[in-house]
Amino acid sequence: MSLLDRLGLAAPIVQAPMAGTSTPRLAAAVSNAGGLGSISVGAVRADRAREMIGEVRRATSGPFNVNVFCHRPARHDPARNAAWLAALAPEFARCEATPPPQLAEIYTSLLADADMVDVLLDTPPPVVSFHFGLPSPEVIDRLKAAGIVLFATVTSLAEAEAAIVAGVDVLVAQGWEAGGHRGIFDPTGPDPQLGVAALTRMLVRRLDAPVIAAGGIMDGAGVAAMLALGAQAAQLGTAFIACPESSADAFHRAALFGPGASATEMTALISGRPARCLPNRFTALKAGAAGRTPIPDYPVAYDAGKALASAARARGDGGYGAQWAGQGAPLARALPAADLMATLVRELAEAGKVRRVAERDERWIASTP
Amino acid sequence: MSLLDRLGLAAPIVQAPMAGTSTPRLAAAVSNAGGLGSISVGAVRADRAREMIGEVRRATSGPFNVNVFCHRPARHDPARNAAWLAALAPEFARCEATPPPQLAEIYTSLLADADMVDVLLDTPPPVVSFHFGLPSPEVIDRLKAAGIVLFATVTSLAEAEAAIVAGVDVLVAQGWEAGGHRGIFDPTGPDPQLGVAALTRMLVRRLDAPVIAAGGIMDGAGVAAMLALGAQAAQLGTAFIACPESSADAFHRAALFGPGASATEMTALISGRPARCLPNRFTALKAGAAGRTPIPDYPVAYDAGKALASAARARGDGGYGAQWAGQGAPLARALPAADLMATLVRELAEAGKVRRVAERDERWIASTP
Repeated sequence: MSLLDRLGLAAPIVQAPMAGTSTPRLAAAVSNAGGLGSISVGAVRADRAREMIGEVRRATSGPFNVNVFCHRPARHDPARNAAWLAALAPEFARCEATPPPQLAEIYTSLLADADMVDVLLDTPPPVVSFHFGLPSPEVIDRLKAAGIVLFATVTSLAEAEAAIVAGVDVLVAQGWEAGGHRGIFDPTGPDPQLGVAALTRMLVRRLDAPVIAAGGIMDGAGVAAMLALGAQAAQLGTAFIACPESSADAFHRAALFGPGASATEMTALISGRPARCLPNRFTALKAGAAGRTPIPDYPVAYDAGKALASAARARGDGGYGAQWAGQGAPLARALPAADLMATLVRELAEAGKVRRVAERDERWIASTP
Repeated sequence: MSLLDRLGLAAPIVQAPMAGTSTPRLAAAVSNAGGLGSISVGAVRADRAREMIGEVRRATSGPFNVNVFCHRPARHDPARNAAWLAALAPEFARCEATPPPQLAEIYTSLLADADMVDVLLDTPPPVVSFHFGLPSPEVIDRLKAAGIVLFATVTSLAEAEAAIVAGVDVLVAQGWEAGGHRGIFDPTGPDPQLGVAALTRMLVRRLDAPVIAAGGIMDGAGVAAMLALGAQAAQLGTAFIACPESSADAFHRAALFGPGASATEMTALISGRPARCLPNRFTALKAGAAGRTPIPDYPVAYDAGKALASAARARGDGGYGAQWAGQGAPLARALPAADLMATLVRELAEAGKVRRVAERDERWIASTP
């Protein structure tokens, strides 16, 4: 059975879970339009996750995806934290603020969050997606037993193979182009930086699991291209940032439509893990002391990053925000989610028509021996 | 008129020019199979270029492409060269060889090579493609007046706009995935590292010029995906390395089918300009003294790189070679060029059929308002 049939989707389009930017309202709008809406509960506690899942359910009867973070819990390293805060001190001073006295692991990996597992099992969402790695075999077994379809973000063939061995149903092939946090399991290891097309084709050719392609895809032609590669759907995140249903702030929206859109950068400075961001004051810190200082583990570094962004925002400066975006940012459109979905579906159909016209003269086929 | 019609191509497939790896025989085989074969004369003198163009013409009546390098000529910096040779000295010692006493600019940019321009004008090839930048307006005017269709490698919207303003006819959108030398005009400036899908779609949406998509494409489904993005053709390089018609040595071929294929790296250590390479002894030097030493300009550094590779090869060690490959390397196939072209064309037709089957139930189209 195709993934679309299994999930009951009318369109091969997944709205990417974007912690801090996607909302239950956005997810429901996408699901109501025939796609797979997603929320992320990676950065909230179990009780808030329960509320968010309820909000989605009340707003749609369609399928939806709940994303969780499966990173290795942070190491406690007060010396590293202190050095990091010292490196950021001039930036806090610039905002007429003082750095927080210490840094905390501001949210919990699913690997250490039994309450979150209970929430997922209490009222199982149709899909749960893993980012930054995989949970324990026991948790995977329990989620599967509850009838949940499991997705995992992968950035390489090796991660894909690990996900399949662990029992994951669907691979989300995240290319180097993708905005926000790179899902690579071990951010301290080598990163092959595979583009979405190469990665998707490799997974489709080598493995049997369904693949959803993610990274830099902004329109129906982009979705059509991923289907041509053998993906069963495409996942779009940046395309949805400018929807009124997202919780992106005015600074993020302005940056998305600004000159930096064509120059997104992968940076670990903001959160402690590599993430693709619109260039701003925070990404520019790579050139200074922060660029030479060991960064605390994710999400400990993010505690500092969020404090700095808040201090700046209090003075009307949005330049230290986590303004995540993918390489397709210059093609972003500010449309209500339902309109954007209708546009994507229409563009996808048109991309099919272009192919049909091109095939009519059968030049390529005629060349086949 | 479509690019295929303009060039008289039966298949929307360009064999990438790969200096040192592609050959007149490979180019002719691809052109005879309905694609656009390419040679590069970027690393040879004008007299040898004339011979190579003649070899292609004698072997095919089809269209073909002659690639030239348009980098800024190297700066003469003896101190930098000496420091670089000192950094590589332990590697030469490991090969029981001594570094060359000095380094030279081992080949000439088209920007400083009037003889090469004359060769191109004497017997104009159907296509000339520029890499690393653009020649002067005067040279572009003369090549166009001779009826040559001009391609330029671009890695960003800004480079694409510059190419169009300069009079270039066709944009080769080179994604971050691509093997060999990155065509970025200014290798010292910021690099947005755009993946081929995001870059191609951006150029197609924003500009009127025909686009050829390059980077990580290995099979007919990959070509189909690029056409879905609006490219008029796809350019494949790594897919042709293992053809018997290429001049890749046995070490390069072995590395292409080895475990490093899934971990290609962008490195400037070998030649002085960033290029995507299979991981080997040379790319590994980033972790040592060479990784901390300023690299001479391209192609001065390449003089040292080639000397080191030769010294190692003389001892049976192929690990210092310029083993360029793109991110799609794990999908490489060792087939004669004609067979590979027939396979690609058949796969492309099949990718079209898959799309047609998927569209038959019209689920996506039915969702359109």
